[in-house]
Amino acid sequence: MSTLFTKIVAGEIPSYKVAEDEHFYAFLDINPNAKGHTLCIPKKEEDKIFDLDEETYIELMRFSRKVAKAIEKSVPCLRVGVAVVGLEVPHVHVHLIPLNDMREMTFQHKISMSKEEFETLAEKIQSNL
Amino acid sequence: MSTLFTKIVAGEIPSYKVAEDEHFYAFLDINPNAKGHTLCIPKKEEDKIFDLDEETYIELMRFSRKVAKAIEKSVPCLRVGVAVVGLEVPHVHVHLIPLNDMREMTFQHKISMSKEEFETLAEKIQSNL
Repeated sequence: MSTLFTKIVAGEIPSYKVAEDEHFYAFLDINPNAKGHTLCIPKKEEDKIFDLDEETYIELMRFSRKVAKAIEKSVPCLRVGVAVVGLEVPHVHVHLIPLNDMREMTFQHKISMSKEEFETLAEKIQSNL
Repeated sequence: MSTLFTKIVAGEIPSYKVAEDEHFYAFLDINPNAKGHTLCIPKKEEDKIFDLDEETYIELMRFSRKVAKAIEKSVPCLRVGVAVVGLEVPHVHVHLIPLNDMREMTFQHKISMSKEEFETLAEKIQSNL
């Protein structure tokens, strides 16, 4: 059974794509902690980040850095925070969260965005890669 | 002015050390979200993780993976979570947090440990490196 995120990579479930290469994919979290909250994933299915082979893990972190720098250029924020939790979807995902406040790291305060806002933002981040 | 963490690396402020190499240092967070909550830092002072040069960033993540695998062997948990925030101490630090529950990622629920518990745990993680 494919994970939710494998279906997103395959285009079976739509996403606001931010970046993609041969092995990794980044898209906007549709239930964001803050504007610009992005998930970076390996295309390879793996549940826990530290179970990835070292090379895939390192390349995922390199890919995430590139995306984080594009987010920093696209969204006003003090810095981009990082979180890897994974208690819900069993497919490694690195949260990149533009931070202005500690509350945005708690996953307890969510914001709403329209389809148009998601699309415009995903394009903006893509253009800053 | 040295950061708090530079003073820890220099031994001017004591810490429960878990791992160290030429460029990186890991120690137990003294105000932990969960038992085994560890901070991994570069010895080089830098405020924001994505401002580190790419090589230092990649090696910090490689070092953090090694420490996380030792934590997994030392503390009963579902997985080890990762957080990089940095709104308090202006010196890059990767939080590694043994998770049994999402609450442990929120930084809002802290646990107490005695000096002896910290010492025993730091030694255990070190021995599992």
